Amino acid sequence: MTVSPCDTIDGAVRKISVPTKSGQYTVSIGSGILDSLAKRMPALAAKDRKLIFLLTSPEIWSLWGQRFRASLAPRQPIVLFLPAGERYKRLSQVERLATEMAKAGADRSSLLIAFGGGVVGDVGGFLSAIYMRGIDYIQVPTTLLAQVDSSVGGKTGANLQTGKNLVGCFYPPQEVVADIELLSTLPQRELRAGVYESIKAGLIRDAALFRFIETHREQIDRRDPASLEKMVAASIRIKAEVVGLDERESGVRMILNFGHTIGHAIEAASGYRALLHGEAIAWGMIAATAISRKRNLLTAEAVRRIEAMIRYFGPPAFPPISGKRLLQAASGDKKNRAGVRRFVLLQGLGNAVVTDDVTDAEILAAIECIRPLSGSGK
Amino acid sequence: MTVSPCDTIDGAVRKISVPTKSGQYTVSIGSGILDSLAKRMPALAAKDRKLIFLLTSPEIWSLWGQRFRASLAPRQPIVLFLPAGERYKRLSQVERLATEMAKAGADRSSLLIAFGGGVVGDVGGFLSAIYMRGIDYIQVPTTLLAQVDSSVGGKTGANLQTGKNLVGCFYPPQEVVADIELLSTLPQRELRAGVYESIKAGLIRDAALFRFIETHREQIDRRDPASLEKMVAASIRIKAEVVGLDERESGVRMILNFGHTIGHAIEAASGYRALLHGEAIAWGMIAATAISRKRNLLTAEAVRRIEAMIRYFGPPAFPPISGKRLLQAASGDKKNRAGVRRFVLLQGLGNAVVTDDVTDAEILAAIECIRPLSGSGK
Repeated sequence: MTVSPCDTIDGAVRKISVPTKSGQYTVSIGSGILDSLAKRMPALAAKDRKLIFLLTSPEIWSLWGQRFRASLAPRQPIVLFLPAGERYKRLSQVERLATEMAKAGADRSSLLIAFGGGVVGDVGGFLSAIYMRGIDYIQVPTTLLAQVDSSVGGKTGANLQTGKNLVGCFYPPQEVVADIELLSTLPQRELRAGVYESIKAGLIRDAALFRFIETHREQIDRRDPASLEKMVAASIRIKAEVVGLDERESGVRMILNFGHTIGHAIEAASGYRALLHGEAIAWGMIAATAISRKRNLLTAEAVRRIEAMIRYFGPPAFPPISGKRLLQAASGDKKNRAGVRRFVLLQGLGNAVVTDDVTDAEILAAIECIRPLSGSGK
Repeated sequence: MTVSPCDTIDGAVRKISVPTKSGQYTVSIGSGILDSLAKRMPALAAKDRKLIFLLTSPEIWSLWGQRFRASLAPRQPIVLFLPAGERYKRLSQVERLATEMAKAGADRSSLLIAFGGGVVGDVGGFLSAIYMRGIDYIQVPTTLLAQVDSSVGGKTGANLQTGKNLVGCFYPPQEVVADIELLSTLPQRELRAGVYESIKAGLIRDAALFRFIETHREQIDRRDPASLEKMVAASIRIKAEVVGLDERESGVRMILNFGHTIGHAIEAASGYRALLHGEAIAWGMIAATAISRKRNLLTAEAVRRIEAMIRYFGPPAFPPISGKRLLQAASGDKKNRAGVRRFVLLQGLGNAVVTDDVTDAEILAAIECIRPLSGSGK
């Protein structure tokens, strides 16, 4: 968890550069940087920029709208709303928002700021990717999950009735601004759902980040800003490195899906109602850890530490889904290709490996093994 | 209209290579090549390719489906239908088609063939661009307009209620197969609507193509295959050159919009009902030619030849729209940026120039000047 060559510290703001096929963008991380947006967003001032659109949820806007507006002044964004919740992450909403933009006079020079959690970020990014075949956009994530995961990497999209994120684009933002202070109003369950993705980042590529969360778990859980900021920055750096190596998920980016094969299956099989995304991933990581252990890729001590850390943040009980239904759901995973199920395992703490030979029997055994242990740890 | 270095002739098939940011693709042009699709489509046989989807219209499929199936055998595509007509070029149809694909088991290794006119090609390309954030696709255009224009260049998209092609992606196909024989069942009006785009290609960049159409207009109008094939190949070569220089329309690609500022305005102001796209572009080209003449960029003789050629193919009368409404519609054009209206003029036959200082008064004068002359030339 050292500062990488691509990190710069500007006063109290950490900056991480994310390489893309067509250039790069900067993620700024700090506490209270919502008050200096103009400085954090050079893209706002691009030549020819006429209209600024802002996509947010009513909840976020009522909490932070006034400070956001003041920070952007004298520029006045045109505010568009997306109701909170996964069920609004649909093409019909994208169409409604695009129509509102067209009516307000949006053209190719317009810029959109997505100010909200994962749904606002994913829909805002997708809307930007397809409006007039692509306009600039900026991510200002307001949840921990969106800060450490979905706002970085350029994945945008919407759900179909048949599955999550089945339509979308790889479309990188111009900038990402992650303000730790925004996390102060997050419900505790949502904070923890984000911590699981940070734990994942440590597990797949940064043992020092894992140790940091292990030794600062109390501070993180009570939102000590300095601890959160370090965890967020280290998590984003992992993500930036990985997507920089493989923007379109043809190779190494797959490791970001550690815990996701079974996690997505849990979400799909329970109709996306029982658990938050991060919570499903928590269980998926425990299952993938069990499989890694069975293959002798992890020591018993490593497994104990991983499970203890995940359980510290108390995911709700494993939902009552049969192993058979979970396997069915896993076979529809988007990461599969030509019928081959790719699976991420751990070969030691901080080191992920991708394999395509994990059998149904191994998955079933792992699920049966963790199910009785399930239930909130705190 | 010489063979460019990137053209190759393979038996009776012309091949034109289109460079893209991420590689290149080949356009094959010939008569009857529908019967050798497997040979024309190496992408069909890519490693890991499991499912092949085919998007077409019921009309096209009833005319050509049997030959298409036979040519693809032993592979069996899963056939998806999009009804004919611009009103089906909507996100709701894209969503329906994506859902059908998901239910049929489409994954990232799947390939889609768009077999139809411009609407099928644009929607099929867009569907491919966003399905699981991008799958491979092949264009098999069945109208002259789609062959010479929309199937090449990677522009995909759908309409909003507020305007055409307001959502979409730049997403190049893997291959394009243009079979001249498919044009034999095209209604005459649609054939001519495509000829206008070929005339445009000549006017903006290839005086020899313009002369070829001028001297072969009778053969083209009665669908002499050899003449059509030469015209199609030369038109595609122009398009390939231009989009190769500027895939995302930030510069020179703008010249492809010759006739389109006023053409689009005619379409929008008449609710897309009075004229076919190509016919509106025909009138737009006549207007842009008049403005070029007023600016002394074209000789009177050049103007006479351009008008005579367009009128030979007999566009329907200029619709009864006031100049004011046309100007309003033109101000909403997608090619505008930050309030500046970019306009393509001709500086001599075969040479387009882009300008942003064409005034409303010049546009009004051009429209008033051509309106009384309007009406079918044939």
